[in-house]
Amino acid sequence: MAEDAAAVAAAAAPAEGESSQNITPWDVEAGDDGVDYEKLVRDFGSSHIDDDLLDRMERVTGKKVHHWLRKKIFFSHRDLGEMLDLYEAGKPFYLYTGRGPSSGSLHFGHLLPFLFTKYLQEAFDVPLVIQLTDDEKFLWKDLTLEEANYLAYENAKDIIAVGFDPKKTFIFSNIDYMGHLYETVLRIQKKVTLNQVKGAFGMTESMSIGQHSFPAIQAAPSFSSAFAIPLRGQTDLPCLIPCAIDQDPYFRVTRDVAPRLGFRKPGLIHSKFFPALQGAQTKMSASSETSSIFLTDTPDIIKTKVMKYAFSGGGETLEEHRKNGANLEVDISYQWLRFFLDDDEKLEHIAEEYGSGRMMTGEVKQTLVDVLSDIVLKFQADRAKVSDEILAEFMSVRPLDF
Amino acid sequence: MAEDAAAVAAAAAPAEGESSQNITPWDVEAGDDGVDYEKLVRDFGSSHIDDDLLDRMERVTGKKVHHWLRKKIFFSHRDLGEMLDLYEAGKPFYLYTGRGPSSGSLHFGHLLPFLFTKYLQEAFDVPLVIQLTDDEKFLWKDLTLEEANYLAYENAKDIIAVGFDPKKTFIFSNIDYMGHLYETVLRIQKKVTLNQVKGAFGMTESMSIGQHSFPAIQAAPSFSSAFAIPLRGQTDLPCLIPCAIDQDPYFRVTRDVAPRLGFRKPGLIHSKFFPALQGAQTKMSASSETSSIFLTDTPDIIKTKVMKYAFSGGGETLEEHRKNGANLEVDISYQWLRFFLDDDEKLEHIAEEYGSGRMMTGEVKQTLVDVLSDIVLKFQADRAKVSDEILAEFMSVRPLDF
Repeated sequence: MAEDAAAVAAAAAPAEGESSQNITPWDVEAGDDGVDYEKLVRDFGSSHIDDDLLDRMERVTGKKVHHWLRKKIFFSHRDLGEMLDLYEAGKPFYLYTGRGPSSGSLHFGHLLPFLFTKYLQEAFDVPLVIQLTDDEKFLWKDLTLEEANYLAYENAKDIIAVGFDPKKTFIFSNIDYMGHLYETVLRIQKKVTLNQVKGAFGMTESMSIGQHSFPAIQAAPSFSSAFAIPLRGQTDLPCLIPCAIDQDPYFRVTRDVAPRLGFRKPGLIHSKFFPALQGAQTKMSASSETSSIFLTDTPDIIKTKVMKYAFSGGGETLEEHRKNGANLEVDISYQWLRFFLDDDEKLEHIAEEYGSGRMMTGEVKQTLVDVLSDIVLKFQADRAKVSDEILAEFMSVRPLDF
Repeated sequence: MAEDAAAVAAAAAPAEGESSQNITPWDVEAGDDGVDYEKLVRDFGSSHIDDDLLDRMERVTGKKVHHWLRKKIFFSHRDLGEMLDLYEAGKPFYLYTGRGPSSGSLHFGHLLPFLFTKYLQEAFDVPLVIQLTDDEKFLWKDLTLEEANYLAYENAKDIIAVGFDPKKTFIFSNIDYMGHLYETVLRIQKKVTLNQVKGAFGMTESMSIGQHSFPAIQAAPSFSSAFAIPLRGQTDLPCLIPCAIDQDPYFRVTRDVAPRLGFRKPGLIHSKFFPALQGAQTKMSASSETSSIFLTDTPDIIKTKVMKYAFSGGGETLEEHRKNGANLEVDISYQWLRFFLDDDEKLEHIAEEYGSGRMMTGEVKQTLVDVLSDIVLKFQADRAKVSDEILAEFMSVRPLDF
């Protein structure tokens, strides 16, 4: 508890001389050199996922870990070791992740937590709950309640198309599930003071009371008491939360109140941010058409966006490029390939050839266009199969298999 | 809207030289001379209920108004005239009142809003919703969520025993009804800033986020959208709220947000406070055993409490009493009789005889004991008939008759 509280304070006030960055659940302002993840881990008080932990995950699950773990794209955690201890001792956990439905279609950045969660669900064979925070989007955005609720259902179809197990996955809209969620929300709301949310989230006086009390609603699914029916009355099931690291403030508050409620602290696995096409300074935003590639985009649109907007780390001129090679760290096409090209050998080849200046930006961009187009076409085919009946199944309050 | 906002500010800062009193939904601190109701009406910006309005109520309903209206016990209102206009034009309203279930049994002070609401329901033949704020009591008191929820159901049985029409009355626990209430709550929460609740309720930083957002939950039943099923989908039904005047801050905030949500402002009828046995400075509290007479008390206990604790306005000595008479304003037995002795002639007789010093305190107290004992015995007999089935009927989400 103390460690979490200290972390909140530290995150709010960066030490002097350090790169200034401001990471909140609603805004990611990187410093001039991009996001300083070392500093985030230090400030937030989380732990790096090291290779020993990954080796252990492989032993426990009998499966290779997701390549995003080896690449340190999912790079930080809280209590993952403890979750593995419990799992090995026969105590399964459940997974919790979520999505704020602010637009009708997901983009590639949104795929990260879901694809990763799918790996976790399959590797550990555990139930999963997915919170759609339509209430949050209603409170924060210029959306009607009906629009936010509609977007939740549209987004749910996208999420289902990622390929979750319908027997083990419960997707819910906060607006619709609140009748079930409220008791847990209320228990949390009683334990969190206004001071705490101001400290952890930087809330201001002119923000609405809905915004101030919302953290309890995102916290609630961390406790299995919120899912009496989906989790079959097992109110002491541990929870593991894969999420982007900007969501960590919610779960620091959650972990802080957990022992005072007699609940288990949830474990966390944090990802880095998926960079915008224009560069690694910020995370991709659904509200900017040109910074994102949507899962509804056609291969033609993808090609145009990548060719036109993807920030290049290549040399300014052919001579310069041949001489110095590309700066892979800032090259968006290469960085996106690290996420979505699941072929280490090919990726290594690109890194060598492009980094040394023998391969040109155009070729790397074309590789990315091909990779993204394949994913999008498969996704769109899968999305077309998600009927209203399948949606209703995933979103019905029912006991999950586990 | 402007008038309401100004009223909030005025209530927070009493003018210099005026008797200091602090009336909030959780605390009633009267000045040295008791509660200054004139000042409350002025500060809050409500209106006095005058005899013209009462005459009109009698014409509209074809029934005599409740004696508490003629006695100015229900003395202040907002938009009652407009409600009557609509009612006469064929647009019925619904009634909304509530109870915070902090103890297992109601006391006589709690009967006020319910007996008065019963009169309104019968006179106007309109539907009624009764909110049990078990969530509020959980947030404010040292109660578990289960205890608060249990007390809500116990209190509901007391309320039913008052004699409401089961075809026209819906009683709900916030904890249990939140699934239905949440959309309306959320709409309100989006429109109320932290600043506003701090101003209207004097909330502080160390209070919980649940407390800060609660005003939206008490506001929500003022809008018929919160009762799609009980009110048969009529989302534009006007709402009339009988309540003690200390609850007014909730409804000032409610009336302030209503037009911004496209909702009707609720009308209000305010009562004065029912005084504690010990004197008129404060309202009766369920948390003090000796300041209240509970509806579970026996006639013997009532006699002991009245004889021992009811503050007397009679003279200190027999001579003094015979000479100066009793001070009826501060005499609790007389004041309680004003509430519960529904016999104007007898009350007038006591006022003359006791006020002039011809009648002694003991006789007035005995009259009060008789009146209260009759009420309690009838109440207890009615309460014993409220089965779990009847409770379930009143609390089931169903269309009301109207």
